[in-house]
Amino acid sequence: MPATEQPRDAALRERARRVVPGGMTGHLHAAMLPPGYPQFFASGSGCRLVDVDGREFVDFMCAWGPNLLGYRHPEVEAAAARQQALGDCLNGPGERFVELAERLVDQVAHADWAMFQKNGTDATTVALTIARAATGRRKVLVARRAYHGAAPWCTPAPAGVTAEDRAHLVNVTYNDVGSVEAACDEVGADLAAIIVTPHRHELGTEQQPVDPAFARRLRELCDRAGAALVLDEVRTGLRIDPAGSWESLGIRPDLAAWSKTIANGHALAAVTGTDALRDAATRIFTTGSFWCGAVAMAAGVATLDIVAREDVVGHLGRIGGLLREGLASQSVSHGVPVRQSGPVQMPLVLFEDDADFAKGTLFCAEALARGAYLHPRHNMFLSLAHTEADIDRALVATDAAFAAVAARFSHT
Amino acid sequence: MPATEQPRDAALRERARRVVPGGMTGHLHAAMLPPGYPQFFASGSGCRLVDVDGREFVDFMCAWGPNLLGYRHPEVEAAAARQQALGDCLNGPGERFVELAERLVDQVAHADWAMFQKNGTDATTVALTIARAATGRRKVLVARRAYHGAAPWCTPAPAGVTAEDRAHLVNVTYNDVGSVEAACDEVGADLAAIIVTPHRHELGTEQQPVDPAFARRLRELCDRAGAALVLDEVRTGLRIDPAGSWESLGIRPDLAAWSKTIANGHALAAVTGTDALRDAATRIFTTGSFWCGAVAMAAGVATLDIVAREDVVGHLGRIGGLLREGLASQSVSHGVPVRQSGPVQMPLVLFEDDADFAKGTLFCAEALARGAYLHPRHNMFLSLAHTEADIDRALVATDAAFAAVAARFSHT
Repeated sequence: MPATEQPRDAALRERARRVVPGGMTGHLHAAMLPPGYPQFFASGSGCRLVDVDGREFVDFMCAWGPNLLGYRHPEVEAAAARQQALGDCLNGPGERFVELAERLVDQVAHADWAMFQKNGTDATTVALTIARAATGRRKVLVARRAYHGAAPWCTPAPAGVTAEDRAHLVNVTYNDVGSVEAACDEVGADLAAIIVTPHRHELGTEQQPVDPAFARRLRELCDRAGAALVLDEVRTGLRIDPAGSWESLGIRPDLAAWSKTIANGHALAAVTGTDALRDAATRIFTTGSFWCGAVAMAAGVATLDIVAREDVVGHLGRIGGLLREGLASQSVSHGVPVRQSGPVQMPLVLFEDDADFAKGTLFCAEALARGAYLHPRHNMFLSLAHTEADIDRALVATDAAFAAVAARFSHT
Repeated sequence: MPATEQPRDAALRERARRVVPGGMTGHLHAAMLPPGYPQFFASGSGCRLVDVDGREFVDFMCAWGPNLLGYRHPEVEAAAARQQALGDCLNGPGERFVELAERLVDQVAHADWAMFQKNGTDATTVALTIARAATGRRKVLVARRAYHGAAPWCTPAPAGVTAEDRAHLVNVTYNDVGSVEAACDEVGADLAAIIVTPHRHELGTEQQPVDPAFARRLRELCDRAGAALVLDEVRTGLRIDPAGSWESLGIRPDLAAWSKTIANGHALAAVTGTDALRDAATRIFTTGSFWCGAVAMAAGVATLDIVAREDVVGHLGRIGGLLREGLASQSVSHGVPVRQSGPVQMPLVLFEDDADFAKGTLFCAEALARGAYLHPRHNMFLSLAHTEADIDRALVATDAAFAAVAARFSHT
């Protein structure tokens, strides 16, 4: 599908190429998406997106996570607008700042306190800073290929990063207890923290649930060493369990990093922690010009109120289950094997024998042309706004997309 | 003034103490302010702030910088609301993203391109990452005590920071050419960048204009070494010269970091750069969940349109001049010597013989009680919303505050 079929998108890309490096930066760069995918959007509502050329899609990326309740959720937007009419970024926070911290402490099982930032990367960075301040130690264990943000210490790209930015990171393998035990032996008394995502969700790789024995062992090793277990909930937060994604395992972190969903798309991040780390959290100095902005706080309070009142996780589970079952059935009927992985709330669809993602790319391009915005390599997201009718509409698109994959790639 | 005179503020502080480390974090913590200063605010409009107890102040902190045009500037808020009604954080940016980059490239003299973030710290960090990616080198010269953000590499507090976070920073002294030349000799071929604020604005110290010879020498040293000169405009941006704070000197940086004012309080940051650094800016990977949020972009476009259309800098200069003259006259008439420093758009008032800031603290507390919100140690800010009447009102408050200082501290 040539780009000229989307003339406004093409024109904006051309203008952007002149004034933005690479025409776009970061994870929303359309260069990493299949042909035909738009770079620029005009609007969003519920689970629907409209690109600048007027094409409407049932969206399964949810802005790469932030959209939990539906784009422009009326209750969240009303709360944000009420606050905006009073003020946003002032000389100090407003009452919503306290309310939001109280909501998080109520909601998150391990949390005795909360503090706020803007980016998910801010939250993971602050959490590790607190762990280092608390312990007076330096080393942090982190799973190889896990994404914890895009600052020099964690960005997946090496350009512009120095060896010292990662001098105190020690790589382990997710779900491999032995690798963590070996790393603990290696760093000895210098272990400040282990940072880990609730499940394994690396780009282009099947998602993998955490092995409960692995999670338990991380908790034990941190307890034994007096180090902090940091759960990176930036991607999973409020989608698996609002109390913490490891609550069903009975394992609680010392610190957790939150962002994306907590204000349903308004820029906000948070770190929650236990009383044992409160003093360290008080001693570090980390701040940002907009971190106390009251509008995002008001949106956050409204979002958490809805999460407390409605069974958002259950809805995502039901809708995600329908999508997964529908895709599984189509995969069989078209003779095109796929591997679906991850919690159903965060679907990932990978094709068998597709090392170069050619099948996934064709599949997503064909689905997009029929109104379903999917991603071939990154886990997707569902929202409270997705209905059965939306899933049905998407499955019509994916049925044709499976047919196109079957036609292009012969399966004998 | 006991805190119980502000019962709502006191009650919120008590609640916050339970659920936020230290009751508050970062630069907006009221613990660093004089007695009677509120921690929590109800609303803002123009240059006026109302705290949660209903006290109204003529504000001279402007949210510590972001408020350039007035809180809730109608044109900016209308643009933001129009965009919010369409969508904010979607699967990609909107048209405003391109427009804003075009506006910055048009406005900023050195800029061939722009890229966006959320925090000022993001912008300074990204700028240094680009410089390192471009040069393949590691060392960055930075003035001792200069504030460039609050990530581990730059936060003024040591808690939780490792030596390696700053392994490649080399301290120099602002306006001391010899210190920079010595640092350049020391790092030799490993010089990636020099980062510098347009003028010297360290907490609790007189502001100092840049020595033009110092600025020129930085430019020469970067040119000679093939390193990047990074101008940190986070605090100064749009207040001194929208084209760049060193334009009057005829000295242009390779990269500049912007935030605070560029969307008049909506969370946004930007890096601007030259064509020579475009490739490096394309190769680094840095991103955030909300960096393409369209509402802040729309607010940014509206802000830059106003800056292009109205003489904001001139207004800040006139108003700032009136404040400075008024305070100077009161200082003389009360026999209480002060040192006023910095560009008049960013006033700082320090008292002679006041190493412990006791005079400044009393002065600000007394001014606050009479409706003027000043800061005893940090540079202040003016906005387009400040009128002569606001300055007159503030000068009534400061006249009484000078009298209180004169009464408490005898000057013989």
